[in-house]
Amino acid sequence: MFVALKKQEQFRDEKMVKAAVVDSPRMFCDLYCLKPAQFQKVHAHEDADKIYVVQRGRPTLIIGEQEKVLEAGELAYAAPGVPHGVRNDTDEEAICLVFMTPRP
Amino acid sequence: MFVALKKQEQFRDEKMVKAAVVDSPRMFCDLYCLKPAQFQKVHAHEDADKIYVVQRGRPTLIIGEQEKVLEAGELAYAAPGVPHGVRNDTDEEAICLVFMTPRP
Repeated sequence: MFVALKKQEQFRDEKMVKAAVVDSPRMFCDLYCLKPAQFQKVHAHEDADKIYVVQRGRPTLIIGEQEKVLEAGELAYAAPGVPHGVRNDTDEEAICLVFMTPRP
Repeated sequence: MFVALKKQEQFRDEKMVKAAVVDSPRMFCDLYCLKPAQFQKVHAHEDADKIYVVQRGRPTLIIGEQEKVLEAGELAYAAPGVPHGVRNDTDEEAICLVFMTPRP
């Protein structure tokens, strides 16, 4: 399967959209689409790995005690049990490709 | 952990380089770095999911019976058992971020 990520982008005024890109019994890969001021609350998964890869914009990634504004070509990794989240503090859209395994 | 993918790139004259980005007991995430004419032979994993996300260049992705030249922002997914590989038919470097779970 081939996917052009740009075509999967979806935005909603109410909250961040998680657009499914790949979904298997073992993992998912979603496109997180954040308008300005939208966010994913910091949370943790005891037994799963999660990776965020920024596609565009300048989202702020939170991993454990650290937070950092990332841009396209930068990645954030949350090991099992490590709190993580993302928010868009800019006035432009932000897009992250997100992988998680195992599937929650 | 935060990673700037550009800094992970490594090339070798002999063959494609797989540079480790994230390595956990459940999954790995590598940067595949292909000089012109380099490739990963088509192969299959009976029980694993693999995703390629093109970072730069125009690599040719092979998934099952299909092959396609992809560019930055495009993704290829190989479900378990589906033959897959990548080759660089261009005269420029090509970079793919690759996720696989479970770890082989």
